[in-house]
Amino acid sequence: MTDLDALARRLRESLGSGQVITDRQELRTYECDGLAHYRVVPAIVALPHTAEQVATVVRACADAKVPFVARGSGTGLSGGALPHADGVLIVTAQMRRILDVVPEDERAVVEPGVINLQVTRAASPHGYYYAPDPSSQQICSIGGNVAENSGGAHCLKYGFTTNHVTGLQFVAPDGELVRVGGRAEDPPGYDLLGAFVGSEGTLGIATEVTVRLTRLPESVRTLLAAFHGVDAAGAATSAIIAAGVVPAAVEMMDALAIEAAEAAVACGYPPGAGAVLIVELDGPAAEVEAQFEEVTALCEESGAFEIRIAADDAERALFWKGRKSAFAAVGRISPDYIVQDGVIPRTALPSVLRKIDEVAAENGVRVANVFHAGDGNLHPLVLFDDGVPGEAERAETTSGAIIDLCIEYGGSITGEHGVGADKAKYMPRMFGDDDLDTMQLLRCAFDPDGLANPGKIFPTPRLCGERPGRHRAAEDEDRFPGVEVF
Amino acid sequence: MTDLDALARRLRESLGSGQVITDRQELRTYECDGLAHYRVVPAIVALPHTAEQVATVVRACADAKVPFVARGSGTGLSGGALPHADGVLIVTAQMRRILDVVPEDERAVVEPGVINLQVTRAASPHGYYYAPDPSSQQICSIGGNVAENSGGAHCLKYGFTTNHVTGLQFVAPDGELVRVGGRAEDPPGYDLLGAFVGSEGTLGIATEVTVRLTRLPESVRTLLAAFHGVDAAGAATSAIIAAGVVPAAVEMMDALAIEAAEAAVACGYPPGAGAVLIVELDGPAAEVEAQFEEVTALCEESGAFEIRIAADDAERALFWKGRKSAFAAVGRISPDYIVQDGVIPRTALPSVLRKIDEVAAENGVRVANVFHAGDGNLHPLVLFDDGVPGEAERAETTSGAIIDLCIEYGGSITGEHGVGADKAKYMPRMFGDDDLDTMQLLRCAFDPDGLANPGKIFPTPRLCGERPGRHRAAEDEDRFPGVEVF
Repeated sequence: MTDLDALARRLRESLGSGQVITDRQELRTYECDGLAHYRVVPAIVALPHTAEQVATVVRACADAKVPFVARGSGTGLSGGALPHADGVLIVTAQMRRILDVVPEDERAVVEPGVINLQVTRAASPHGYYYAPDPSSQQICSIGGNVAENSGGAHCLKYGFTTNHVTGLQFVAPDGELVRVGGRAEDPPGYDLLGAFVGSEGTLGIATEVTVRLTRLPESVRTLLAAFHGVDAAGAATSAIIAAGVVPAAVEMMDALAIEAAEAAVACGYPPGAGAVLIVELDGPAAEVEAQFEEVTALCEESGAFEIRIAADDAERALFWKGRKSAFAAVGRISPDYIVQDGVIPRTALPSVLRKIDEVAAENGVRVANVFHAGDGNLHPLVLFDDGVPGEAERAETTSGAIIDLCIEYGGSITGEHGVGADKAKYMPRMFGDDDLDTMQLLRCAFDPDGLANPGKIFPTPRLCGERPGRHRAAEDEDRFPGVEVF
Repeated sequence: MTDLDALARRLRESLGSGQVITDRQELRTYECDGLAHYRVVPAIVALPHTAEQVATVVRACADAKVPFVARGSGTGLSGGALPHADGVLIVTAQMRRILDVVPEDERAVVEPGVINLQVTRAASPHGYYYAPDPSSQQICSIGGNVAENSGGAHCLKYGFTTNHVTGLQFVAPDGELVRVGGRAEDPPGYDLLGAFVGSEGTLGIATEVTVRLTRLPESVRTLLAAFHGVDAAGAATSAIIAAGVVPAAVEMMDALAIEAAEAAVACGYPPGAGAVLIVELDGPAAEVEAQFEEVTALCEESGAFEIRIAADDAERALFWKGRKSAFAAVGRISPDYIVQDGVIPRTALPSVLRKIDEVAAENGVRVANVFHAGDGNLHPLVLFDDGVPGEAERAETTSGAIIDLCIEYGGSITGEHGVGADKAKYMPRMFGDDDLDTMQLLRCAFDPDGLANPGKIFPTPRLCGERPGRHRAAEDEDRFPGVEVF
């Protein structure tokens, strides 16, 4: 009996055999997350129902020195939940209880498998909602949001997941159940909560999450402004922010993204638009009214040739339908595509968009741009046809060059999708050796054996206790034994 | 030559003799911070001028295994900058350059010795300010604010220091200069920034701080509402928050605090008030106008017998004068006092205030209450006369009992002053052994020799690598050799 067989038996004894998968066919279901580019079949899948069961699984892995990877709904776009070929994939999807909703304290307590939108559904009868809204909010889990510090269209005003989690229970890599933070603001001691949120499963697995609830705004108003090109739409974005207005969202789509959305969902955006902006304001009615006029005027001054104001919720939903379907819609105009995620300073938008066009032209591929313009968070969609020899490679080159541009302009290699398996190689370009060594101090303190989601975030599979040295990006095969790259 | 003599010589050679103090009389200046209750004369004081000099001093301490403590302006109220008798006190007060102010990015970059209010002075010509505003903002330093995660009257709306620091350079306990975070939001990798802010000097010393600048609000309106007692004022606070209004500040003073403020600064609050609330709204003019009416009505409904609305900046300043001078003003009505700092859920305000009265009566001392009512952050001032035998002890007992009440009601042992030397003994009452062990993991990863501000935050002087066990609070003498307690 191999070590992994023994581990599987121990897990079956602790959890029950229905919660442990070792059948090769069944395991295949879990070979990738939303980033299907990388695939690894895990050795074992465990489906715990409680925090104690997660602790049991992690303790068993720690005892056997077997790596483990956590997975929520598997919607992540950076391969953060890519399994380990000789490890256990711990799926929290069965842990879906909403444990408490306390409107007076503006808090809810949920299990990690709870779907993002379910929190809002539970809170809205009390006049509250959960603010972070990834595009995948109908299927992604809160535990995954915590791991990746997920964002969404409304981050501009409301911040990321880290701004909305006030307490956590998690299983540390040694199998211990730990609490950090709580319901109150600013507890004493180290703010390990902040370090845990966004640690992509490398410091442990969240088993209970206390989130901040946000009061439903008194008023929401949404406009759609059509421009002849992205330069004018970018200028409008800068003008709005410079005027001191903080919209709930400022989203931009370029001509190609509009074309895709029209083809897929017939959203009826103004014909001939080279770019559209969706600007949403929310808050007290008096404020929204006053600022909405200002935003409308600024869009006109920046060259909007048509401005539509949503008359009701149905029309507002229609504006958003085009935007929210844009990623999937690209499938209508291209057989394959890569979703990129990078950040640039808002003021660099026009220059970077022009450079993206140049890079795409050089490589003979098309790039559709859909992005959170207010944050400078780009989501270029690099279109290609895998049936055409060489095109996938050229798309990959283009996608990488876009990240290079983000770094060159003082931005970041990821805005909200995380580093995961996909972007660890870029970390040495954003951080110096000393900075990465300091992050490793934390990882090694929690996980000296490197069992918690190995290969993610950090570019090298360095062992804890090794002397610091130059961080070189390892090849995918070094970081993920048995990986298939598509 | 002792080890400390050798260290002093090494520091003099590196820094210049004018930047190293070893004269016993001069060292006495640094024996305590704003919490004069504990005093320890340091062995050496170093006054670095640059980040590199801080790194040099820390590296020398690390080599010699000598403890070090950082100090900014020395205004902290939890003894976070209490020196070590056999250690080096590293004073950052000479590092006062504002390195950059970038309104387009809403950022400023400053050295740690820069005074809090200076950041606002540098930003305000551009239409911005630095939001966290401790009462000591005219003298406290940004480095100290980072160490203690300082708050202020406007935390209710704007959050604590941790919400306004986006990047740091710091010297780690091994003497390495490290950067975490930056100018952008949400960089990838571990959010060590959040863990560093509020770590009270135990993870290293900040040498450069990138702060978020906040746009000056279009409109600010302030009212002063007088009530017959704290119950009614507490009810008004709850009603305002329940209505979904987020004021910039909701501050309460009880009868004794009002008496002290009148004696000191003749602020002219309504005669006969058992409690006053200062409510400040800021933001877009349209929003402020609409909400101000609502707040006024809610105060009246809760029993305010007089409401004054500040007609101009001068009157607004007068409202605040009473509040901001309250701590010092207490000196007019009592020779000695302890400033306590604890947090309770907002809804528990009336019950806890009644219990504080009972505890004070039992111990034969008076307690004046001044607090950030919106946050539930109490600052009870326990009055006593050190000339009366036994009174200091009874005041101490009362002060401790108030913290017990905060814990009992589900609150926190500190709202904004930090744990420091003073409250480490309470940590095991807020956190379980596993939680404290997890925090120690981080401390030990950064500082395996326990040289960075030893004795602060954690209740026991445990060595790194010791087996986890029960966290018992050590006596002050164990944690701070040579301490004098006043």
